[in-house]
Amino acid sequence: MARVVVDVMLKPEILDPQGKAVQGALPRLGFEGVREVRQGKRFELEVDGEVTEERLAQLHEIAEKLLSNPVIEDFEVHVS
Amino acid sequence: MARVVVDVMLKPEILDPQGKAVQGALPRLGFEGVREVRQGKRFELEVDGEVTEERLAQLHEIAEKLLSNPVIEDFEVHVS
Repeated sequence: MARVVVDVMLKPEILDPQGKAVQGALPRLGFEGVREVRQGKRFELEVDGEVTEERLAQLHEIAEKLLSNPVIEDFEVHVS
Repeated sequence: MARVVVDVMLKPEILDPQGKAVQGALPRLGFEGVREVRQGKRFELEVDGEVTEERLAQLHEIAEKLLSNPVIEDFEVHVS
């Protein structure tokens, strides 16, 4: 069994209101020096067996078709 | 300037309906062999200057107080 992590973040050119809300709250709570905050999603998948090339291609397809919206989001697949 | 990533995931004992929904959709879309899916949040913070010990402590405080709900979520802070 292997653990695979898929990180999904909004593309840099897409506005991120959730991130902006966090960023705006930080100085009010006394935290200075954070220039930008972006909020995205993290998926942890437990997959059967070894992560072969074929399996990895399938996981990329899952990330692209099910876990992210490729119009506005980028994703990264990490095997850990 | 440094980039800090905060990963926030539901504690293992907390049910994750979003993750379960993804998990349930996978076989219907023809993807077999994924045993479990958990969905969480990923924050990317750009902070001014170097990440000192003091700064890191402050980022842990931000993660605990603002980015996560410690009752139901665990978080990890990574400097990249």
